[in-house]
Amino acid sequence: MFQVRTDLAVEARELYQENRRQEIPGVEVKKEGEGSDVEITRVKVLDDNGSHLMGRPKGSYITVEARGLKSADADLKDNVSKALAKELVKLLPNKKNISTLVVGLGNWDVTPDALGPEVISKILITRHFFKMYNKKEDPTMSAVSGVTPGVMGTTGIETTDIIKGIVEKSSPDMVIAIDALASRKMERVSTTIQISTTGISPGSGVGNSRKQLNEETLGVPVIAIGVPTVVDAATMTNDTIGMVVKALKNHSEKGSEFFKLLDDMKEEEKYALIKEVLEPYGANVIVTTKEIDKIITDISQVIANGINIALHPGIDLKDVNRYLQ
Amino acid sequence: MFQVRTDLAVEARELYQENRRQEIPGVEVKKEGEGSDVEITRVKVLDDNGSHLMGRPKGSYITVEARGLKSADADLKDNVSKALAKELVKLLPNKKNISTLVVGLGNWDVTPDALGPEVISKILITRHFFKMYNKKEDPTMSAVSGVTPGVMGTTGIETTDIIKGIVEKSSPDMVIAIDALASRKMERVSTTIQISTTGISPGSGVGNSRKQLNEETLGVPVIAIGVPTVVDAATMTNDTIGMVVKALKNHSEKGSEFFKLLDDMKEEEKYALIKEVLEPYGANVIVTTKEIDKIITDISQVIANGINIALHPGIDLKDVNRYLQ
Amino acid sequence: MFQVRTDLAVEARELYQENRRQEIPGVEVKKEGEGSDVEITRVKVLDDNGSHLMGRPKGSYITVEARGLKSADADLKDNVSKALAKELVKLLPNKKNISTLVVGLGNWDVTPDALGPEVISKILITRHFFKMYNKKEDPTMSAVSGVTPGVMGTTGIETTDIIKGIVEKSSPDMVIAIDALASRKMERVSTTIQISTTGISPGSGVGNSRKQLNEETLGVPVIAIGVPTVVDAATMTNDTIGMVVKALKNHSEKGSEFFKLLDDMKEEEKYALIKEVLEPYGANVIVTTKEIDKIITDISQVIANGINIALHPGIDLKDVNRYLQ
Amino acid sequence: MFQVRTDLAVEARELYQENRRQEIPGVEVKKEGEGSDVEITRVKVLDDNGSHLMGRPKGSYITVEARGLKSADADLKDNVSKALAKELVKLLPNKKNISTLVVGLGNWDVTPDALGPEVISKILITRHFFKMYNKKEDPTMSAVSGVTPGVMGTTGIETTDIIKGIVEKSSPDMVIAIDALASRKMERVSTTIQISTTGISPGSGVGNSRKQLNEETLGVPVIAIGVPTVVDAATMTNDTIGMVVKALKNHSEKGSEFFKLLDDMKEEEKYALIKEVLEPYGANVIVTTKEIDKIITDISQVIANGINIALHPGIDLKDVNRYLQ
Repeated sequence: MFQVRTDLAVEARELYQENRRQEIPGVEVKKEGEGSDVEITRVKVLDDNGSHLMGRPKGSYITVEARGLKSADADLKDNVSKALAKELVKLLPNKKNISTLVVGLGNWDVTPDALGPEVISKILITRHFFKMYNKKEDPTMSAVSGVTPGVMGTTGIETTDIIKGIVEKSSPDMVIAIDALASRKMERVSTTIQISTTGISPGSGVGNSRKQLNEETLGVPVIAIGVPTVVDAATMTNDTIGMVVKALKNHSEKGSEFFKLLDDMKEEEKYALIKEVLEPYGANVIVTTKEIDKIITDISQVIANGINIALHPGIDLKDVNRYLQ
Repeated sequence: MFQVRTDLAVEARELYQENRRQEIPGVEVKKEGEGSDVEITRVKVLDDNGSHLMGRPKGSYITVEARGLKSADADLKDNVSKALAKELVKLLPNKKNISTLVVGLGNWDVTPDALGPEVISKILITRHFFKMYNKKEDPTMSAVSGVTPGVMGTTGIETTDIIKGIVEKSSPDMVIAIDALASRKMERVSTTIQISTTGISPGSGVGNSRKQLNEETLGVPVIAIGVPTVVDAATMTNDTIGMVVKALKNHSEKGSEFFKLLDDMKEEEKYALIKEVLEPYGANVIVTTKEIDKIITDISQVIANGINIALHPGIDLKDVNRYLQ
Repeated sequence: MFQVRTDLAVEARELYQENRRQEIPGVEVKKEGEGSDVEITRVKVLDDNGSHLMGRPKGSYITVEARGLKSADADLKDNVSKALAKELVKLLPNKKNISTLVVGLGNWDVTPDALGPEVISKILITRHFFKMYNKKEDPTMSAVSGVTPGVMGTTGIETTDIIKGIVEKSSPDMVIAIDALASRKMERVSTTIQISTTGISPGSGVGNSRKQLNEETLGVPVIAIGVPTVVDAATMTNDTIGMVVKALKNHSEKGSEFFKLLDDMKEEEKYALIKEVLEPYGANVIVTTKEIDKIITDISQVIANGINIALHPGIDLKDVNRYLQ
Repeated sequence: MFQVRTDLAVEARELYQENRRQEIPGVEVKKEGEGSDVEITRVKVLDDNGSHLMGRPKGSYITVEARGLKSADADLKDNVSKALAKELVKLLPNKKNISTLVVGLGNWDVTPDALGPEVISKILITRHFFKMYNKKEDPTMSAVSGVTPGVMGTTGIETTDIIKGIVEKSSPDMVIAIDALASRKMERVSTTIQISTTGISPGSGVGNSRKQLNEETLGVPVIAIGVPTVVDAATMTNDTIGMVVKALKNHSEKGSEFFKLLDDMKEEEKYALIKEVLEPYGANVIVTTKEIDKIITDISQVIANGINIALHPGIDLKDVNRYLQ
């Protein structure tokens, strides 16, 4: 398992390849739309070996990437919402009149961690109307509820326990959980959306791992949607050192020795070393971008639109923009 | 039961007296510290008749009033926190090592309704430390958790159900619920704190009544803390009309006829009439003050300090200000 | 001059008509698109008499009204932005390569007063690019700067002085000033945009009058754009009393006497009386709606889009939504 | 001049010493209270040589450091406010009834850059009372105004021009400017306050240098107060590489060669190289801490208290906390 911190399956695979120069056994990778505005990568972790090497559970990891998302093109945003909706629809339980609980993980008070709560504020919440009018079905809408459970540091309660309690009282058919992630590369911050069916660890995005949020713990299927909003400081430094050494190699003869030396070290060793020396910077160091406030606002709309279209059958993008922005 | 909208027991009683010119049967009222900076009124609804006439359940309603709170005197704030703590301690279950869930009712996105969530952000949350170190007791702290369940309009789920689910998973010995209230008088906005043991209706503060949050529904004792942050538009208009008519009476002879006429109408009739004519203003009209943002920040600190002192035995006001502000 | 508090010329006229049952002499009124989604009323105050009776300077007052704005229809919003842009273009100085300073009046910290600052945050600011590349003109953009000067209570300086200082240092050809207004009717809150060329009093929206912001004080033309975000408490009560009395009249015989009596009072007397009795509620009472936060977000986008389209010749609504949202 | 990015004079000196292992010629350094809770370092840049080597103008740079500020001890905060006030009083113009304009540089919308505006919101603004009552002096207060001019990217106008315009219209005797800075070390973030009389470059904290804000450009003395809120990404990486290499040296023989090699490179070369390889991360990368929101709230209160005590003669810390928090 790779020590370098990333919450993205595509990056875990990338790292394996950089180090071993081969595809991970037990992992299947398919790409769609390469070179186009919206690229989709499907990583399937097929067996225990693949799971061990990838450091994550067996199952599907779908990555929707759109580098252009940074420049806030409204058409591109709409296309990403549609692509997201299309993927979500494929993952919905095969059942009529699904009711869904959408969970916004993370902390309102820490900007890069506020993605989940921001998405919830843009979801079309309808469950109470179904209850109020005692309806079971509707041609245009499905029953959707939404909660922002907070983080353990501010509630004192395991986030998974809070959600489990709400699931038991409100009985949704499924849960969609949204969380902010850490990436290895700044260029993926806010341009990459990962969808997976293997669950999520609340707080893994910007903190330590906790109880898993998945079908096993909640009793209903869980679709996790994540977007990187920060880069891990150790990861950034590690990558930069690699780049510096490469650059040195090209600059001088001595650089070449250097390169060999560092290249000989295992990735894990190097990362652990950096982690150690970064210690005095504190556990709470984050590397992000100055525009993170605006970025969270934008990408949360893209994700909320995707979810709204996927869950409410009679609604398309025009309506979503019309009624909910 | 009075139709005029107030969430304060002291005002319900005031209204009864204004109309009937007598004390409510089945209701006991005691005052402390009259004329001092911090006045305390204890209203006890003793029997079903009192309950019917007051329009609220049997039980204790304690009101801590400090008109000076508006001018933000730090010493007065501290005194109110201490008075609140003293009252809370009397209401705690008679048991060692109490664990408490503090619930911040209301909606972050509507300023006058954000009191509950603001208080939660200032509570010293400790339950996870007890869990992490597998402790049952601590000489200085008790186990405190805190949640902000949102409102039904944004979650799609009855707030009482959400809290019930969290109570079942986290097993606190008691719940303290904080909510924003509506008062009859602008002068009570942010200067009055009501404590009661009879439960609370989430959403009654700035919306319609829902499922009660009380010992019966949650299975553990519930202490409700409320502060008025708005005045009901119909109430304000009703009161103003009364004052106008009184003023007219003093101005002219005709005013006197007027006064008799209006005075003959039952309070309920008048209020219903005003409610009707205010309709076009919409259900969402609120009357509040320009300083409501600052007021919510200030009063939430006063309440959080009171709760922190009451729940954590080794902590006094100095520490609260020191570690938590 | 009418005492009843309104910042809208159309309401000042309405009030005159309600009392005198005739059009105001010296005031010309034209309506466009009556009954359609977007209605435009052009009030021209032609002479000193009209100015005196209307209580505002001679000049043009254009009102763009769209009741549907409340329900957040994206197409209607776009239409209102276009209508606003069209009106603004007619008022721009007849000159090539105009540079504009957009001023967001009001106070970030008081939600209903934050309209101006919110609009500024959505304006396409370009002046620094013109300076940086030493350009005088551009086929697609004009030089636009934007400031949020604050309010006298938080700066200690007359807002007009701050803007005058910035105008002298940055030499725009014109100023567009945006402010929150008070209306007489809740239904106009957030659905009505008033454009005028006669200047504006910073702080008149939610406070007392100060030094005028107009061509005379700033030395360049000033276009004022205002949207009602609050209703004056006295106004609301006054109107409600009127309605109550009317309702009483229909309910009872006595009501009819009542009606006559109150009807005999001059509007000004009644308003002054109510103002007096409302006194204990404090000078800072505001009547607004629970959704004011969301409403400010929405309407500020509509206005910013209108200004962006009007000022940047190469930009249309699609681009505005694309690049700036 | 050192290329490594720091806004702190104490760090510029530190860097010189690390590289040259000697005190900077033309720079005088005095320390007070070493080892105590609040340490003060006075760096005086005496001549042109010192100015060149330090990369900043001749003059005084006072640094107030309190590592404990992170843990939010109320007494320590008060002590830092008092120390700051004491230093400020020494720097005030020798004149009775000084009027001061306090300027909060930076951008409300970028959390680590919002320090200046946050401080302004906590300053006791009084100038308008002096104007209103036509007073020249007051035994307890001096005339204080406050503005938040924004940043060039959001206003389109040089910040220095905006302030110059406001200074000309409001005629203060002096300006105090507050800005967020970049430090070389995470441990200095929010624990170090730098006071200087040599002016400040708006936007240098988190962006590129612009027109200086100093006595020369404004016509009145300028006291700059800065607090580091971010660490430059290149600086952090550079420091980490140094530490990694040192650690490697201790781990292996090869590390030792490594160390020599890297050690031979000039600091400037290394920094430039890192800067180059970090390029793809974008110009807007910031390294900060997860608690930055809370930290800005806390430290802005400490600074505002210091300024309030220094400027208003009849006010001490108790009043400041009492009336302004």
